[in-house]
Amino acid sequence: MDVVTFGEAMIRLTPANFRRLEQAYSLDVEIGGAELNTAVGLARLGRTSAWASRLTDNPLGHLIANRAREAGVSTEHVLFTDQDRVGVYFLELGASPRPSGLVYDRADSAMAKITPGMIDWAAAFKGVKWFYLTGITAALSPSSAEASLEALQAAKKAGLTTCLDPNYRAKLWTVEQAAAWLNKAITYVDVLVTNPEDVERFFGVPGKDVEQATAEAAKKFNLGAVAMTMRQTPSVWKNTFTAVGHAKGQFLRTAIHEVEIVDRLGAGDAFVSGLIHGLMNGDLQQGLDYGAAMGALKHTVPGDFPWLTKAEVEGVVNGMGLRIRR
Amino acid sequence: MDVVTFGEAMIRLTPANFRRLEQAYSLDVEIGGAELNTAVGLARLGRTSAWASRLTDNPLGHLIANRAREAGVSTEHVLFTDQDRVGVYFLELGASPRPSGLVYDRADSAMAKITPGMIDWAAAFKGVKWFYLTGITAALSPSSAEASLEALQAAKKAGLTTCLDPNYRAKLWTVEQAAAWLNKAITYVDVLVTNPEDVERFFGVPGKDVEQATAEAAKKFNLGAVAMTMRQTPSVWKNTFTAVGHAKGQFLRTAIHEVEIVDRLGAGDAFVSGLIHGLMNGDLQQGLDYGAAMGALKHTVPGDFPWLTKAEVEGVVNGMGLRIRR
Amino acid sequence: MDVVTFGEAMIRLTPANFRRLEQAYSLDVEIGGAELNTAVGLARLGRTSAWASRLTDNPLGHLIANRAREAGVSTEHVLFTDQDRVGVYFLELGASPRPSGLVYDRADSAMAKITPGMIDWAAAFKGVKWFYLTGITAALSPSSAEASLEALQAAKKAGLTTCLDPNYRAKLWTVEQAAAWLNKAITYVDVLVTNPEDVERFFGVPGKDVEQATAEAAKKFNLGAVAMTMRQTPSVWKNTFTAVGHAKGQFLRTAIHEVEIVDRLGAGDAFVSGLIHGLMNGDLQQGLDYGAAMGALKHTVPGDFPWLTKAEVEGVVNGMGLRIRR
Amino acid sequence: MDVVTFGEAMIRLTPANFRRLEQAYSLDVEIGGAELNTAVGLARLGRTSAWASRLTDNPLGHLIANRAREAGVSTEHVLFTDQDRVGVYFLELGASPRPSGLVYDRADSAMAKITPGMIDWAAAFKGVKWFYLTGITAALSPSSAEASLEALQAAKKAGLTTCLDPNYRAKLWTVEQAAAWLNKAITYVDVLVTNPEDVERFFGVPGKDVEQATAEAAKKFNLGAVAMTMRQTPSVWKNTFTAVGHAKGQFLRTAIHEVEIVDRLGAGDAFVSGLIHGLMNGDLQQGLDYGAAMGALKHTVPGDFPWLTKAEVEGVVNGMGLRIRR
Amino acid sequence: MDVVTFGEAMIRLTPANFRRLEQAYSLDVEIGGAELNTAVGLARLGRTSAWASRLTDNPLGHLIANRAREAGVSTEHVLFTDQDRVGVYFLELGASPRPSGLVYDRADSAMAKITPGMIDWAAAFKGVKWFYLTGITAALSPSSAEASLEALQAAKKAGLTTCLDPNYRAKLWTVEQAAAWLNKAITYVDVLVTNPEDVERFFGVPGKDVEQATAEAAKKFNLGAVAMTMRQTPSVWKNTFTAVGHAKGQFLRTAIHEVEIVDRLGAGDAFVSGLIHGLMNGDLQQGLDYGAAMGALKHTVPGDFPWLTKAEVEGVVNGMGLRIRR
Amino acid sequence: MDVVTFGEAMIRLTPANFRRLEQAYSLDVEIGGAELNTAVGLARLGRTSAWASRLTDNPLGHLIANRAREAGVSTEHVLFTDQDRVGVYFLELGASPRPSGLVYDRADSAMAKITPGMIDWAAAFKGVKWFYLTGITAALSPSSAEASLEALQAAKKAGLTTCLDPNYRAKLWTVEQAAAWLNKAITYVDVLVTNPEDVERFFGVPGKDVEQATAEAAKKFNLGAVAMTMRQTPSVWKNTFTAVGHAKGQFLRTAIHEVEIVDRLGAGDAFVSGLIHGLMNGDLQQGLDYGAAMGALKHTVPGDFPWLTKAEVEGVVNGMGLRIRR
Repeated sequence: MDVVTFGEAMIRLTPANFRRLEQAYSLDVEIGGAELNTAVGLARLGRTSAWASRLTDNPLGHLIANRAREAGVSTEHVLFTDQDRVGVYFLELGASPRPSGLVYDRADSAMAKITPGMIDWAAAFKGVKWFYLTGITAALSPSSAEASLEALQAAKKAGLTTCLDPNYRAKLWTVEQAAAWLNKAITYVDVLVTNPEDVERFFGVPGKDVEQATAEAAKKFNLGAVAMTMRQTPSVWKNTFTAVGHAKGQFLRTAIHEVEIVDRLGAGDAFVSGLIHGLMNGDLQQGLDYGAAMGALKHTVPGDFPWLTKAEVEGVVNGMGLRIRR
Repeated sequence: MDVVTFGEAMIRLTPANFRRLEQAYSLDVEIGGAELNTAVGLARLGRTSAWASRLTDNPLGHLIANRAREAGVSTEHVLFTDQDRVGVYFLELGASPRPSGLVYDRADSAMAKITPGMIDWAAAFKGVKWFYLTGITAALSPSSAEASLEALQAAKKAGLTTCLDPNYRAKLWTVEQAAAWLNKAITYVDVLVTNPEDVERFFGVPGKDVEQATAEAAKKFNLGAVAMTMRQTPSVWKNTFTAVGHAKGQFLRTAIHEVEIVDRLGAGDAFVSGLIHGLMNGDLQQGLDYGAAMGALKHTVPGDFPWLTKAEVEGVVNGMGLRIRR
Repeated sequence: MDVVTFGEAMIRLTPANFRRLEQAYSLDVEIGGAELNTAVGLARLGRTSAWASRLTDNPLGHLIANRAREAGVSTEHVLFTDQDRVGVYFLELGASPRPSGLVYDRADSAMAKITPGMIDWAAAFKGVKWFYLTGITAALSPSSAEASLEALQAAKKAGLTTCLDPNYRAKLWTVEQAAAWLNKAITYVDVLVTNPEDVERFFGVPGKDVEQATAEAAKKFNLGAVAMTMRQTPSVWKNTFTAVGHAKGQFLRTAIHEVEIVDRLGAGDAFVSGLIHGLMNGDLQQGLDYGAAMGALKHTVPGDFPWLTKAEVEGVVNGMGLRIRR
Repeated sequence: MDVVTFGEAMIRLTPANFRRLEQAYSLDVEIGGAELNTAVGLARLGRTSAWASRLTDNPLGHLIANRAREAGVSTEHVLFTDQDRVGVYFLELGASPRPSGLVYDRADSAMAKITPGMIDWAAAFKGVKWFYLTGITAALSPSSAEASLEALQAAKKAGLTTCLDPNYRAKLWTVEQAAAWLNKAITYVDVLVTNPEDVERFFGVPGKDVEQATAEAAKKFNLGAVAMTMRQTPSVWKNTFTAVGHAKGQFLRTAIHEVEIVDRLGAGDAFVSGLIHGLMNGDLQQGLDYGAAMGALKHTVPGDFPWLTKAEVEGVVNGMGLRIRR
Repeated sequence: MDVVTFGEAMIRLTPANFRRLEQAYSLDVEIGGAELNTAVGLARLGRTSAWASRLTDNPLGHLIANRAREAGVSTEHVLFTDQDRVGVYFLELGASPRPSGLVYDRADSAMAKITPGMIDWAAAFKGVKWFYLTGITAALSPSSAEASLEALQAAKKAGLTTCLDPNYRAKLWTVEQAAAWLNKAITYVDVLVTNPEDVERFFGVPGKDVEQATAEAAKKFNLGAVAMTMRQTPSVWKNTFTAVGHAKGQFLRTAIHEVEIVDRLGAGDAFVSGLIHGLMNGDLQQGLDYGAAMGALKHTVPGDFPWLTKAEVEGVVNGMGLRIRR
Repeated sequence: MDVVTFGEAMIRLTPANFRRLEQAYSLDVEIGGAELNTAVGLARLGRTSAWASRLTDNPLGHLIANRAREAGVSTEHVLFTDQDRVGVYFLELGASPRPSGLVYDRADSAMAKITPGMIDWAAAFKGVKWFYLTGITAALSPSSAEASLEALQAAKKAGLTTCLDPNYRAKLWTVEQAAAWLNKAITYVDVLVTNPEDVERFFGVPGKDVEQATAEAAKKFNLGAVAMTMRQTPSVWKNTFTAVGHAKGQFLRTAIHEVEIVDRLGAGDAFVSGLIHGLMNGDLQQGLDYGAAMGALKHTVPGDFPWLTKAEVEGVVNGMGLRIRR
């Protein structure tokens, strides 16, 4: 197993054709969760990946595990419980001047109720190279925050490379709570994925100048690599997406991708899968390039999962253009 | 306003075309809740009806209130709150030998969090003739049980005719809890809608002989009327549906309706709307006949609401047959 | 060209999945019209057929003509006009005890506004063997009644075999109006398709005993053949369908077909196509058998058109059974 | 009741996914009508609104009334009749260089057959503050034109503020007919919503310079306020939308909104709801800003109704940007 | 790994709502293949299963592998090739008197082009208990017939229990070709799943009396168990389904299940999964009961896969009835 | 008959809403084939057209022929065979930076198996004015290449104007194979439709300067006219489309059309229908203008067929703008 990720996945319900939820007569079913999305992206790039989580043993919980496997991710480390519930979120797709919007209904999910000790990390990490999670996992509940720390520590102890994206969600915890946990967690982290705003408010590193920010964060926390993605939103249907990173004293950039947006959720998670893929090859430039291409391409695919091929990612990295592929 | 009902409504999500939830790619959106369903049935029969409840002030909560109004029900007594959540349930439609199945996700809904005093019943009942609720409302939570009792007492005090259907749901409370509440509530009830099993386990009235059971229940609790529906299930797609009742010493029956089943949820609730309609006209036989016809017809309509017309109900009562209506 | 038929076709709008019109969020689009349906059936059996009509020159009118051609029917005798409108009807599919229902919105259609002289029947009937219309065409308007008579007379004059199905629609004309027109028309008719009720109220032939009724009608109006279909409706989803006929002093019957009903509209029209096909082969038994099989099979196909193959029709005639065809 | 509006609503049928009508296999069902759309917009902004109209008492007529109530509009002043029909229109959504197109089938609708005296305006206007209609209502038929004038006069008599949008439709009446009616109507109008072209051809006020045009129209007809919306159409999927207005000698403008177009029907009607909302607060700038924001946002929502929230409108007014709302 | 199965899976395309293929505007996508279906059934019963096959390395091939994993089946033994194509079949769902029908387009698929030696069976069978295939795999092509024999021999050599269902398909090979291969194959088989017709035409065992037939077949080929399923088809939508079997001199029967049919494909394959499950527990009666219940339940689920739970299977085995599961 | 075209048509299957094929749960069914698309375009412009081809006599083959007739094209020259198969292709719609993609499954189709002599061209060309085919027909198989040449020769012999578009598909044949066939074919061709790349690699005419290239090609092969279309792809959803042409020493251009892309397949084929329409009127400028307008408009219509009206084409030619058509 190349990579294990750890976090919650939810059932995503989206009205078709830009309908508002109040207008909805049917809802499209997708599965989404930051760490699962990244595990999917790694599988699509040819890496073996597993997603560790906790789900309720009912059709909704199995739906999530099934779709993870469908997308190539191992669910051998998913715990099933008779208790709790499966998180759900609702997505409304927007158009300028109305941004897309989300309604979360995730309180008290099986994953939010996870506690340290539930997963046998020593077993789960046997033969694994990388571990990845986002701050969302820690934000779900105090017990999930503890379990997240436990996982990070176990990963370090087992010799894995660890990667963290703070991925701050204001509905789940306060900036103060996030900062407290993140500053504990960062000591077990090798690779940080972040953005100018978060690096400043959580880690006290001025974010405006991304070259300096990534360098300073790397130095401050002794990180192997720091990466950031940047997005511009001239309209709801058309954005730009790009990435930068710092490793071993070197600052690198990717092309700026113009994206036409079918579904922008999961773009950041897709970036991380490309990044890890490149870093596993020891090549930050490749990681950034593949990551930015995967993130850009993800905008064109419905759902949170990056249903892409390695050839498509490489096509974007290599600038193969927009002519129809016959 | 002719009738006020009180209870929870949820968003119902159903995979189309008999798909299992694990196979679902889209879910049809309906609204359902026993007391709301009955209020809809009354509106379809030309009665004015309102539904009292509590909902979260988000698109899901408004979706429920909107659809109630669409179906002709007043939502002036619906409280909106920033707190809590909107209940959801998932329905899988079956075929022999697989019965239809439900997955509920309703814990901690805004309605479950209702407490006595939240609704100004004195105001809500001004000029109203009937009040209806089911045991489900009481089963949602201890505070909802108290609020239900408060409502019943206020209705009696305001001179309304009150009607109760125990509608026992084992997932929400135990038989003992239900029995305790129901035996308190029954003292404020004028009309009881029940079935042979419930009348026995909750009220200690032997249920096997429905003629005796309805008579004895009426006597024991000094009820103006007692009604029961009975269903036979030779197959999942074809049932029979019929009703009996007792009032003022008289036992009455309806025809036995053969029903082809599009969606059997809400049939019992539809029955109650016909029953109340007839009893408001002082005619139990009409109440049972309209109730059984509405219940039978409800099986033919997707969703929980009885989207029927008075003319259709009367057509079934009068045996107008199955020829296409051109 | 083997057969020309003459009548109105409309756009049919049906809510999916047994939804009521008041519940409809989308409507399935089909095309239907008695005489067009029959022309389609003839084309499916390998006969060349054309449908004469009048349509508004807008996307709705062209939709109808396009779909007629798709199903194999020539539209060379369809007139297009800038005036008037295209008829529409709405269908609600039922389930016991709720029969299916129709809402017509066909007043002032281009076909209702047809007048004698608009179609050059002498040209249209060149080389044609049969002409078919139903009483619906005459019922659309007084001018359409005249145009229908004109067509029948022209057909006789041109040496075609003529066939008429009174197909009484109470929403379009009274029994008296229908009787008056039908008794004029019958003098130009060779083959009558009817039923026990109509033969009695329109032609004064007692209908109860179908053997006597068909014989007497044949004699009274000097008809080459008289055919009737009979339907039993034990439930909305399951009917029986059968046919009888009289020709040259002989009374014939078909098997009784049990049908599971997907969409029963157009079954009678499909019957006529099988009947004419057989009679063109000089074989009333074949006509009844193919007609009854086509009518029975039509119930299994969505829309008004009989999308069937000759092999399937012969399979039912020959009792090939219900095993899956691999 | 804050506002009563008066006009026709129709069933709108739209093929999904940019299909042409000739390609349509299913049609999405929406409800639309200028004055109903505006009543919906007012309800969404928290105003109480009612829509007065006339509908056929069949499932289609009830569908319209139901959906009006769903969207928060009172239907207590809707007359139901056994006669006439429900108007229908078909919409084809375009893409550059093909503009969207409409096919109307609204002749002889129940609303076109309305006559003066049918609605008891004195009763309907009791306690109401504003009355709104468009020229479309007058254009439906001569009797509807008279009924429209009757309504305006009754509104003035009852002390309501009246608002009119000429909303010229060339398929319904000629410019001369429109001008004649509008110049009669304008004498009962307080607020005029129009555009540069109409103010010139109907009211003889040069429209090119919108500042002068609004001032001159206000003066000429002694209007409390005059508002105009302007649209630029660089492509079918991307427009700009803005508004100007004049009141009490003051000329005001709004921001220019870039809109990505899901469904542009009803944008003008949505504008009017924001305008009236602001004017009810005595604030033309607010009226223009809310109106332009509602109009802009309406482009992003399927159907004719402005399914928006006050918070969303204020978000656009306040320039809150296009980032996803989590 | 408990069980390995070997065969082709195809993309199944079905028009929704009983449409004919000629009427199809969209096609539902499912995956089906006898041996994959059985592997899915085993996974649903809690067994570990893998499916060995050969697929083209394009989105269609991956679609099949993905969906197999989604349903719980390992695809580690699926070979991907740049050559050949992915088989497709089209299904039309019927209604009496029109049976369901299939159009196959599977020639030259990657699996039909498999040759002996492509799969390393020694490796694939390590630690595996059972091997299953049907005659369809052998029927695909001569090279596939050889590869099938190779697999059976390897399975026996590796000590697995082997199970075969002849599953004769007349479109793929003649009775003579089938008989030749089957009589070679049977010598490597432990458990035979068949029916009265096949046991006679392929193995020369009179099939009419199923008790004798199963006993004689077991004896003749020295089989550990012989099982048969029987179906009655009174209508297309309602069948009965039952099973019998013989092992160690004992003849056993199951209940006769009445089934309402959503989708009958894969019922026989689902039976085999229950059968193997029971036989792995050393209990033929359990195998037949679980098999018949799974087969019966499969009719209620869209697609070829038996999306069922062990609890549901046991519910049918234990006669839990048809009441809705709340 | 004005025009006969000759080539393959396939069933096109497309996942809705930008889903990838691996994500597909249903596929939209369209029909496409270069020469059929052109025949449809001609019919839409009021020309009579027929499409000659070969199809398998199963529901898929008839589906294609039916839809051709629906769109106004005669299928009298379509051969049906019991052998071979119907070609299928799968389309994934893209968004920047992911171009749309196609997966073909067309090997061994009935049309690829066509051989010279199968179609009686002398009969088919009686009374016909133009003949059109593309290089795809020749690329299908060696026998189809021969049949294509046979057709061209027969067309010339019968006095038709012939038109060819090389339409190179690298998956079907090599550049060398294409060049060999094209240089044989060109001697029977009157009008060449091509592009800068193809004119160079197949005909040895430098393509960069389109004015020179068209002139030189016309001269070299003694062509009546040479036309080219040019496309720019700044994004997947927005392209430009324009055309140039040379005839009788004159070089002509059209406007450059900005297109918003619903479905870009068939745009080139639609161009050819406009071109031929104009050339039949003896007017290359009209041909280019109508062709470019049809090609541009085609991008806005789902499927491969140009479902457009002559009025719409003329609207674009005349620059009628993007305002909604009421």
